Amino acid sequence: MGKDFETAVLLDFYGDLLTDKQAQTLDLYYNEDLSLAEIAEPLGISRQGVRDSIKRGEKQLHDLEETLGLVKRFRDVKSDMVEIGEMFDEIRNYIQTFIHSDKLSAAVDKIAEKLDAINDKL
Amino acid sequence: MGKDFETAVLLDFYGDLLTDKQAQTLDLYYNEDLSLAEIAEPLGISRQGVRDSIKRGEKQLHDLEETLGLVKRFRDVKSDMVEIGEMFDEIRNYIQTFIHSDKLSAAVDKIAEKLDAINDKL
Repeated sequence: MGKDFETAVLLDFYGDLLTDKQAQTLDLYYNEDLSLAEIAEPLGISRQGVRDSIKRGEKQLHDLEETLGLVKRFRDVKSDMVEIGEMFDEIRNYIQTFIHSDKLSAAVDKIAEKLDAINDKL
Repeated sequence: MGKDFETAVLLDFYGDLLTDKQAQTLDLYYNEDLSLAEIAEPLGISRQGVRDSIKRGEKQLHDLEETLGLVKRFRDVKSDMVEIGEMFDEIRNYIQTFIHSDKLSAAVDKIAEKLDAINDKL
């Protein structure tokens, strides 16, 4: 069973709709990177029990995304933002190379910082 | 009972988690702008019945946002994007007024278009 990044993202978006126990098991597995055995032991259940629980939780998360599509909606915005960042970097380089305006460079740097801050949130 | 824009947004995000009937009633009320009586008649229920159903649906939508906070997450990005748009407009004006570079103006216009397209999605 691979620990895919996709499930971690879905957990971040929809985890609070799972039961506490379900969310906790998935959190330990995907975010804390514990093994099935490490999760099973303190709960007094089998590795297979943990595996089944994780599989059920994953299915719920994927079903929620299938229904709501909000991760996809966010990703669409993120991919547009990456494109804007690239276009913006070209402008920034052009200004630095050909225009030599301190005022313009400072304003452009400020937007670049803001773009980075948004991308960190997405 | 006021038709608030907030519920329409919540319905757009989370409506697919409601029952079909619940989602349909809210859609008719908030998106199609029908009156309680207009919704009640074809369903063969009372205006009060429709009102109660809408109230219940609204509560479910607000509870979902309370739990998941994805509308807020989107809004945070949107408000950052508005800020970037404003900063960018200043640069655009500065370039048009002081720099007079066709190449730079064209590149800046292209980003401005892309920013508008993203804002339409948010």
